Amino acid sequence: MSYLPVLLDDHDLAGALEWLETQPPYAIADEIARMDEVNSVVAFRLLDKDRAIEVFEELDPVDQQQILQGLRDQTFRDLVEAMDPDDRARMLKEAPAKVAKRVLAGLSPHERQMTAALLGYPEGSLGRYMTPETVALHKELTVHQALETVRRRGGQAETIYTLPVVDVGRRLLGVVELRDLVLSDPDALLADLVDTETPHARATDPAEQAARLMRETNVIALPVVDSEDRLVGLLTIDDAVEVIEAADTEDVARQSGAEPLERHYMSASVFQLSRARAVWLTLLLLAATLTVTVTQAFEGELETVTQLALFIPLLIGAGGNAGAQAATAAVRALAVGEVRTSDLLRVIWRECRTGLLLGCMLAVVGLGVGALFVGWKIAAVVGITLVVICGWASTIGGTMPLLAKKLRIDPAVVSAPMVTTLVDATGLIIYFSTAKIVLGI
Amino acid sequence: MSYLPVLLDDHDLAGALEWLETQPPYAIADEIARMDEVNSVVAFRLLDKDRAIEVFEELDPVDQQQILQGLRDQTFRDLVEAMDPDDRARMLKEAPAKVAKRVLAGLSPHERQMTAALLGYPEGSLGRYMTPETVALHKELTVHQALETVRRRGGQAETIYTLPVVDVGRRLLGVVELRDLVLSDPDALLADLVDTETPHARATDPAEQAARLMRETNVIALPVVDSEDRLVGLLTIDDAVEVIEAADTEDVARQSGAEPLERHYMSASVFQLSRARAVWLTLLLLAATLTVTVTQAFEGELETVTQLALFIPLLIGAGGNAGAQAATAAVRALAVGEVRTSDLLRVIWRECRTGLLLGCMLAVVGLGVGALFVGWKIAAVVGITLVVICGWASTIGGTMPLLAKKLRIDPAVVSAPMVTTLVDATGLIIYFSTAKIVLGI
Repeated sequence: MSYLPVLLDDHDLAGALEWLETQPPYAIADEIARMDEVNSVVAFRLLDKDRAIEVFEELDPVDQQQILQGLRDQTFRDLVEAMDPDDRARMLKEAPAKVAKRVLAGLSPHERQMTAALLGYPEGSLGRYMTPETVALHKELTVHQALETVRRRGGQAETIYTLPVVDVGRRLLGVVELRDLVLSDPDALLADLVDTETPHARATDPAEQAARLMRETNVIALPVVDSEDRLVGLLTIDDAVEVIEAADTEDVARQSGAEPLERHYMSASVFQLSRARAVWLTLLLLAATLTVTVTQAFEGELETVTQLALFIPLLIGAGGNAGAQAATAAVRALAVGEVRTSDLLRVIWRECRTGLLLGCMLAVVGLGVGALFVGWKIAAVVGITLVVICGWASTIGGTMPLLAKKLRIDPAVVSAPMVTTLVDATGLIIYFSTAKIVLGI
Repeated sequence: MSYLPVLLDDHDLAGALEWLETQPPYAIADEIARMDEVNSVVAFRLLDKDRAIEVFEELDPVDQQQILQGLRDQTFRDLVEAMDPDDRARMLKEAPAKVAKRVLAGLSPHERQMTAALLGYPEGSLGRYMTPETVALHKELTVHQALETVRRRGGQAETIYTLPVVDVGRRLLGVVELRDLVLSDPDALLADLVDTETPHARATDPAEQAARLMRETNVIALPVVDSEDRLVGLLTIDDAVEVIEAADTEDVARQSGAEPLERHYMSASVFQLSRARAVWLTLLLLAATLTVTVTQAFEGELETVTQLALFIPLLIGAGGNAGAQAATAAVRALAVGEVRTSDLLRVIWRECRTGLLLGCMLAVVGLGVGALFVGWKIAAVVGITLVVICGWASTIGGTMPLLAKKLRIDPAVVSAPMVTTLVDATGLIIYFSTAKIVLGI
């Protein structure tokens, strides 16, 4: 099937219109996110109003902002007014001041006030992702009265499936599920249905932490309170899933020693791709000069036994791989909550033994390879080095993410390449020292 | 606060009981998953019946299975009967045949039949994760009648928020949200509220694909149909989030050249940790013998200019890092659907330019470092090599995951270490060849 960018490049507007009419909103948003600036605005303008709003809601904040800049006043206002306050706040955060001002000016006072409130929370906090439009119930109601309240006020709320229950001061008492209201006797008392054990979070908590809590507790909406336990909003599961996906994408990028891209991989320019990777790559290269210094310190030994150079890539490769495995496992275990910083000593002990075990296994292979190429003496050096390097690399790799977290640094910054580079230099010292002792040079 | 394993190790049962009573079910499950086999069963037996069921539902299948093996008949039957059919099917998959038989024998005929049906779907397919307990509505109903049906039959269903609408042959027509039923006029017709554009999936589709579709379309339940479009179940958002988290954990592990762990990081034994990493580590070491061969081929040049050895770790490190960045970006972009296999040529072109741009930047640093240690001539070799290696590494790193997917191999298997090892050997060839030309050796 011919697809949207091709149709637009061919100026086949009829074809493009037909394509847009037959595709669901999320598929259209997906295409638009992959296109360059001009084409994406053209495609968007071909949509009729209702569909435009649906597609717009599916776009990421950067893409929304780009589309808005290409629109005339009325469409602009319609779109912005139709957005959920939390989506709007996230989009505004990324927009240039000019666009942000235009957006806020075009809003109705009620929507403007809600958006401004969300923008008051720190970046990355739950307050930026929650919806303030909830239906809160008072605990004195009957099920029948509660359902009446939901019918009257539910139209504007982002979700009515989880209904926070509050006291007169709007302090959170618990939640009741719409499911329970619908399935219960209309005369039953709300007070008997309230789940007071349900988790909740503060608006100033990190959004990722709240989202992971939702995943752990299998709830579809999490009540959000202020510092005095008063209800201020709800985090819905679709926003939580987005928060987790973004956090994971960030972790994955960091783990490979790159900054997360701000936009879709295919629509980011080569310059943007390079920029995300350049800083770490340069820092790692500078750190790698340590390996030059170490090797230089052993230049005498290398000149005596040039064959030692043959195994440098293999040995630092094996150490780097073992370190990367341990670091990646630790970062992920921290992210999903399987490991806590208080586990530090136990993790060191586990990784140290795991590394040594793996090292012994590799040593057998290394001995064989070494014997094949250069005889038993250097092979023995290679084997011994593999055991020590693997034990050392696994321990360092598993420990550094936990230390980073203790120091309040994102553990994912302890990337596999960072561990690898560190282990490279120490690995060389281990290798040459072993060679000096075993070969007597 | 003293926590559960410590209390149990001290045989402080009163303390343990108090701790269990004050913690929410998910926190208890979290502790139990971190404990060894004996302690976890002891802790579980201290729970009263209702709480035991709640905690049990929060555990991963491997842990559930382990707990079940330590329980007596009545508690065993209560737990198993109370599980959702999809959770039960996943747990059975991991259980030894003896336990599986005992579970199926203890179930009521209705529950047994539902579980057996789910187990009929292939591993990893949506059928294994969906709930068969749905409330399907016929399109001829009014809103009032539909709500009556929900009240009558909703008690058993896992969710009643998304209600599939079917025709007489149980073929899926669309869905209606409970929200719309509650907020609409009771006399309105269901036919007017049905959303027929909502996404759905086949029970034989991969569960991960269906879960990602839910995330993209922001729905909280996805109708599942058989090959004749008849409704067979629903995938709920909490199960979808679990599927995505498991798939991401798997990808992350594979990316570092390790097999995913089957259980919680802290409860896996050192042997299990090692086994997950051993295969790839060994394969990579064997692949790394290629670097020995390459270096050996250039042993003459190395003997002439020993200083060339100084930069081996730095150069293959930089190439490895650039390749790992590109591979990780490509694997993630494929996983979240930003890149498709049809983008292959465009990805090659993007990554090639990105790599060369990064290489030029690194070359400047490399020239400086080289000049500092060994003078301009070898520095020039280092600089030129960095440009070529980075361009090559990024291209290979970005391309291999797409090729893997084209060949129907999990792209995450193209791990950063695999790309690094590949690039190591070719990088050495580039380095020594450049040296031969520039230094005239």
